[in-house]
Amino acid sequence: MISLKKAQEIVLNEVDKLEPLSIKKVSLLSSYSRVLAENVYADFDVPPFKRAAMDGYAVISKDTLKASSENPIVLEVTAELPAGSGTNFTLSKGKAIKIMTGAPMPLKGDAVVMVEDTRMLSNKEVEIFKEVSPGENVSLKGEDVKKGELILPKGRFIGAVEVGMLASLGRKEVLVRKRPEISIIVTGEEIREPGKELPIGKIYNSNGYALFCQALSCGTLPKNLGIAGDNKEKILSKVKEGLKSNILILSGGVSVGKYDLVKNTLKDAGVKKKFWRVAVKPGKPTFFGVKMETLVFGLPGFPVSSILNFENLVKPAIFSMLGRKDWNRLTLKAYLKKDIKNKSKRENFIRVKMIQERGEWWATPILSQKSGVLKSLVQANGLIIVPREVERVKAGEKVEVEILNWRGIE
Amino acid sequence: MISLKKAQEIVLNEVDKLEPLSIKKVSLLSSYSRVLAENVYADFDVPPFKRAAMDGYAVISKDTLKASSENPIVLEVTAELPAGSGTNFTLSKGKAIKIMTGAPMPLKGDAVVMVEDTRMLSNKEVEIFKEVSPGENVSLKGEDVKKGELILPKGRFIGAVEVGMLASLGRKEVLVRKRPEISIIVTGEEIREPGKELPIGKIYNSNGYALFCQALSCGTLPKNLGIAGDNKEKILSKVKEGLKSNILILSGGVSVGKYDLVKNTLKDAGVKKKFWRVAVKPGKPTFFGVKMETLVFGLPGFPVSSILNFENLVKPAIFSMLGRKDWNRLTLKAYLKKDIKNKSKRENFIRVKMIQERGEWWATPILSQKSGVLKSLVQANGLIIVPREVERVKAGEKVEVEILNWRGIE
Repeated sequence: MISLKKAQEIVLNEVDKLEPLSIKKVSLLSSYSRVLAENVYADFDVPPFKRAAMDGYAVISKDTLKASSENPIVLEVTAELPAGSGTNFTLSKGKAIKIMTGAPMPLKGDAVVMVEDTRMLSNKEVEIFKEVSPGENVSLKGEDVKKGELILPKGRFIGAVEVGMLASLGRKEVLVRKRPEISIIVTGEEIREPGKELPIGKIYNSNGYALFCQALSCGTLPKNLGIAGDNKEKILSKVKEGLKSNILILSGGVSVGKYDLVKNTLKDAGVKKKFWRVAVKPGKPTFFGVKMETLVFGLPGFPVSSILNFENLVKPAIFSMLGRKDWNRLTLKAYLKKDIKNKSKRENFIRVKMIQERGEWWATPILSQKSGVLKSLVQANGLIIVPREVERVKAGEKVEVEILNWRGIE
Repeated sequence: MISLKKAQEIVLNEVDKLEPLSIKKVSLLSSYSRVLAENVYADFDVPPFKRAAMDGYAVISKDTLKASSENPIVLEVTAELPAGSGTNFTLSKGKAIKIMTGAPMPLKGDAVVMVEDTRMLSNKEVEIFKEVSPGENVSLKGEDVKKGELILPKGRFIGAVEVGMLASLGRKEVLVRKRPEISIIVTGEEIREPGKELPIGKIYNSNGYALFCQALSCGTLPKNLGIAGDNKEKILSKVKEGLKSNILILSGGVSVGKYDLVKNTLKDAGVKKKFWRVAVKPGKPTFFGVKMETLVFGLPGFPVSSILNFENLVKPAIFSMLGRKDWNRLTLKAYLKKDIKNKSKRENFIRVKMIQERGEWWATPILSQKSGVLKSLVQANGLIIVPREVERVKAGEKVEVEILNWRGIE
């Protein structure tokens, strides 16, 4: 039995041997939530010109020396510059130009007095109530981005901020990585589709649906190949179909009793085994193999094992195929509310509910940690990963928690 | 000028006055990444029967007393139960039934000996090497979920785990909240669409694209109404169109110099102002108003202000419309790497880059904190929110950081 770390290394090593996913040009908005396949450099300075950062009056800062509400300085207003104006204006001593946020600064103007610190005397004169220093309320050419600068690297996830950034660089099209295809086969005679009747001894297919959505959330194109039961011919025919994808996932049929069936079927289909069984709890009976350009994962039938081993093994493979490096979960420190025991002699993924109290995080282990209890993942928003050699963690200890689901700007 | 907290209260209060969004029945997979509009109760126990949690031999636990590899106990094997079997089997003293993970336990059987702790002597006899206690390797009826239990509450975001949970409950259709519609109008004569030429004095439209994607990420249907320039007639006609949506966002045109234009246009369109200007940095010149069933946000033209005030004000409004309560960002403690100064007399949203070193989080403020510098959000993954009365935070202090973008299981 190998460690999760070793298993991840083996998977990522196989990804490195694959042909890279092809590249596709898409429109800016279609690039949202995909992965960048080019290094994006700036073609020009942003802002492309020196501009007002506030509404007010462009001035030569020296002209405002010692201005105050008690001793206002009066300047002559020679023009008005809305945003979108050209740059053929010049200031001279004692003059001001009314200016809007975003408008190009007139030549010789080095600061803007905010409109709140002024009073119009007439169309031609303004009182200045505040001294401004050089550069005040002015955005410099190239202050955001310098021409030629690398702004977004290949492999970057394209969220809303990135789309905005690409737009500001004038990009209407972007190169993204093609989405990998994932086929999902559910094994097990006991599995029925939701909505159908449920005879005694049967359970509903939940893994097929959860895996499908996990695959979606990683930016792939999932394909549901249906339920294969425990019938070798049926599994083999679906496996052959699934081997046309970049990734094939079999759900179930990898525990000891059923393993021979799936193992032999995959062998017959030409899949080379890379490992079987990982020293994690839940999720020990996990298979990984390769055929040509397809990675094959056999995930355990228990729903928690299935979901977590997708996260721990399949997601890093997908991200790596796409060129992404950000598959690690966010970790933070929390105080443990209740003892944790680990007799598994495996790395133990304890599901916890995180609550913030008095400025600190507190982690409460979910009552049932069994791998069949999907509700535990519904209730949890964090994982404590207890190393295999640690048999007990005591309540009150400060522990590291990996965050499972929290959404920020994307 | 009101505080952000007060502004959020005003917005949420207006949401409460709106007609609730309508409800829609969708197929299980289509419910992914939408918001639940019903309380989901379990119609039956999960698992619906007592079952084997491991491959091995179902036994009466007493029969395995003191079994070990030195002193194996031999039991008679009377049947084999694959997963998906019926429940018409019974054990009696001295007997075992070969059983697969997921198969219903035979009557009187109260434990499973893992296959690894056994050896088949013949088709009819098995050696047991390990004592098992009652309940060991057995999943009880209703262990995951009890019939009638509330499993997923109204307003819950439906991620992969929730889809799996719904499937395990047999649900093939789910009630979700209809997506709110958001119209986006970009104002400003200086704005050009990406891909077009960029004359001096003009900049590319980035807010329209970033806001569109932010709206998508919140589960709404965004609609781009295009660039209105600074032309009152053009803005008014687009505003009238936008007022058909649940939310109308105007980008730009809310700072002092331009405010009269947008303010008067919105007034002419019948929009009642609720507030203008919020004591935050960046993002002070922010407008909020209401007409009938439409919320109207006027967001500042600077890209960082626009993105952050969408997060701070529009997102809570959307989530609240959908019945979600989880719009708060995840916070964690970090050591500050460099001094922060806050002379703004406003709540100051400092963008920081978080790095983990020696088991601790360290937050480094991004070099430029100007609201025009979108790159600062590309580089940042956290925010330190400095209260208005705090003028300085010193390097080395432990501070609270709100996480901007980190993805877990969804």
